[in-house]
Amino acid sequence: MRIVVVGGVAAGLSAASRARRVDPSAEILVFEKGKRISYGACGLPYLLEGQVSSIEQLVVYRPEFFERERNIRIRTESEVVAVHHGRREAVLRSGERVRYDRLVWAAGARPARVSRSPRVFRLHTDEDALRLEEYLGRERPQTAAVVGGGYIGLEAATALRARGLRVRLHHDATTLLNREDPWVTKRIVERLEQCGVDVRLNEPVDPEALDAGLVIDATGLRPNVEVLAEAGAALGRTGALAVSERMETSLYGVFAAGDCCEARHVVSGRDVWIPLGTTANKMGRVAGANAAGRRERFQGVAGTSIVRVAGLAAAVTGLSQQQARREGFSPVEAVVEGREKAKYFFGRTIGVQLVADRNSRRLLGAAVTGDDGVLARINTVAAALAARMDAETFAGIDLAYAPPYAAVMDPLLVCAGQLLRLLDS
Amino acid sequence: MRIVVVGGVAAGLSAASRARRVDPSAEILVFEKGKRISYGACGLPYLLEGQVSSIEQLVVYRPEFFERERNIRIRTESEVVAVHHGRREAVLRSGERVRYDRLVWAAGARPARVSRSPRVFRLHTDEDALRLEEYLGRERPQTAAVVGGGYIGLEAATALRARGLRVRLHHDATTLLNREDPWVTKRIVERLEQCGVDVRLNEPVDPEALDAGLVIDATGLRPNVEVLAEAGAALGRTGALAVSERMETSLYGVFAAGDCCEARHVVSGRDVWIPLGTTANKMGRVAGANAAGRRERFQGVAGTSIVRVAGLAAAVTGLSQQQARREGFSPVEAVVEGREKAKYFFGRTIGVQLVADRNSRRLLGAAVTGDDGVLARINTVAAALAARMDAETFAGIDLAYAPPYAAVMDPLLVCAGQLLRLLDS
Repeated sequence: MRIVVVGGVAAGLSAASRARRVDPSAEILVFEKGKRISYGACGLPYLLEGQVSSIEQLVVYRPEFFERERNIRIRTESEVVAVHHGRREAVLRSGERVRYDRLVWAAGARPARVSRSPRVFRLHTDEDALRLEEYLGRERPQTAAVVGGGYIGLEAATALRARGLRVRLHHDATTLLNREDPWVTKRIVERLEQCGVDVRLNEPVDPEALDAGLVIDATGLRPNVEVLAEAGAALGRTGALAVSERMETSLYGVFAAGDCCEARHVVSGRDVWIPLGTTANKMGRVAGANAAGRRERFQGVAGTSIVRVAGLAAAVTGLSQQQARREGFSPVEAVVEGREKAKYFFGRTIGVQLVADRNSRRLLGAAVTGDDGVLARINTVAAALAARMDAETFAGIDLAYAPPYAAVMDPLLVCAGQLLRLLDS
Repeated sequence: MRIVVVGGVAAGLSAASRARRVDPSAEILVFEKGKRISYGACGLPYLLEGQVSSIEQLVVYRPEFFERERNIRIRTESEVVAVHHGRREAVLRSGERVRYDRLVWAAGARPARVSRSPRVFRLHTDEDALRLEEYLGRERPQTAAVVGGGYIGLEAATALRARGLRVRLHHDATTLLNREDPWVTKRIVERLEQCGVDVRLNEPVDPEALDAGLVIDATGLRPNVEVLAEAGAALGRTGALAVSERMETSLYGVFAAGDCCEARHVVSGRDVWIPLGTTANKMGRVAGANAAGRRERFQGVAGTSIVRVAGLAAAVTGLSQQQARREGFSPVEAVVEGREKAKYFFGRTIGVQLVADRNSRRLLGAAVTGDDGVLARINTVAAALAARMDAETFAGIDLAYAPPYAAVMDPLLVCAGQLLRLLDS
């Protein structure tokens, strides 16, 4: 039994490791097109910011670790350019053909737009970050433009501002973070502007044409599906690979995981494409287990994410009111501000927004902004969404309280109480 | 319609406020036997520690606020000493009789043991804290003994140590925090000892007889039920007032809330007595709403709590393995240690313990120790317990991740993964 994994970052290595646990005797090979495996791409903005001192600090495991500790063969700089599934063969760029019994496709995503301008940078791979660092050191630009208001764009704007550049953030829509949600956007824009970032919403621009010493193109990604699509794997409505809850593609014995494939949204029930590292890990484990012969399922995503923007924590999960309406719900939204812990423990303000469905009274989503206390609130909602919890049950959750850590009336529950009143009115 | 509320702290004021919202025209009276209402008793240890500078800082609202803003009459220093339910009458210590249509009993709890020694203190009421402060200022004791390893005892030991006293903590059982759980106890004891607190477990002592400049008696509380029991209200198996999920006692029209009554445990389904401020607030709101004519239910408690012990955050929810076994489950327990966020954001170690039932695979409880990241983990489990979530679903919750706030493989989910392996083995 030979399991071939394509992609050596989050999803691929999770799949390979899990497959090894399930089947101690299978032959497991991982092909990675880049030079490095197992690096935390989520840390690249912090390399730019200076919190991380080198790419090497972001590398979790080296190839030798997988070879030695997990008996998994790793081949870097080895891009798979074709798959002949009838013959169970993957073809490398070198022309080498590799047979497989099971294939796990974890080839990730890539920037949808590519620039050749030496002034325009992406922040997608380790190589992107190194090129950017080199440019910053050599050219010492005084101004930067960031294009794209997703989390990478927001982190990049924060990092460049922290390095002292004058920063302009361009975003083509009116709301940030891929969340049609004026409330969240307002909080983030306020904070960015307080920190001196010039924010331009609803203003599509051409990164190449911007007048700035440096441009970060943080616009959309595109899933790496072409090779597998060519081999006959079906794509979903989003253009990413369609997979079953077993993480199997339409090709029997070919699994997919991570940024290249879709996932079921736990609230809407629809297949969505939300490329995130944590999701990649979870998908990878399920794909790896099933490739090795188990029958596990991936329960889907809620689109939970958190980002630090100029010191503000902004987190979302589930559906915004606008998204919920589009998915056929009758959403009701409550927003409250409250102290995250006792005043005498310097509790700062946290903003909580909850969305529920008027008919079913089911909780649909949340956004939270504030400080360190944001994680606790957003994850509590994420758990509730996984359970398809109704607003009543949510309002009664027995949350932890002590003055150094929380508020006796948690803003989350105060907000849930308001939501109940709106649902009843 | 006249609603009389007995007790002017957490449960009583929540009940009165909620009743006012439900019925704008009812007459609402609150009787409080002490001098102050609406003070955060949970803050008393932080007054001792110095984080809070005066009792007044712990007062959330003054009587005038309730009178003016909510049309609720407040009478302090007014103890209800008898209830004649046949006549719908409460009797004050002064002899005054007060008629009611609905009664909400929120009389709290009191120390089970009372000492007359000037060296022995409680930390239960505002008056206790003031007497203690006065003694510390006057006598300047160099040594202190704390009796009781519940959260008050642990907070008191922390506070006195922070003030420079030599502190000994005595606890009559082998495990702390009312949680038969050697893992949690070990973490807490290690931390206390690192901070120079002398911990003596499994050593029953008489507070009066201890050799120390100051003794804090933080042993058990007893619910204030006698007056209502005398009036005919039924007590539960724990000795606290038995209530329906509507928070109604066995006397029609008499509700109870807070530290004087029992609550259904969401995991075991049994009635338990776990006096905590957050629970008191939730119960109070339900009792107040129902006293004013609504039909709401209180969904129960999970025993969630968090405490800061010498800088360590220790939190529990649901059942420990030992408690679960006693409740008829077949518990399986996993423990992991992991970083709460990225190393380059100074992520510190967090310890997570999860308990699930082998047969149903339902999650039963958790304990978490560490730093600021503890709240997020324990509350996520609290939400899962409210939903009666199974371990598989829990392991797949879409938690938030970004390097400044969380770990890509959250210790909570890593622990859940281990739990699944144990359940499958």
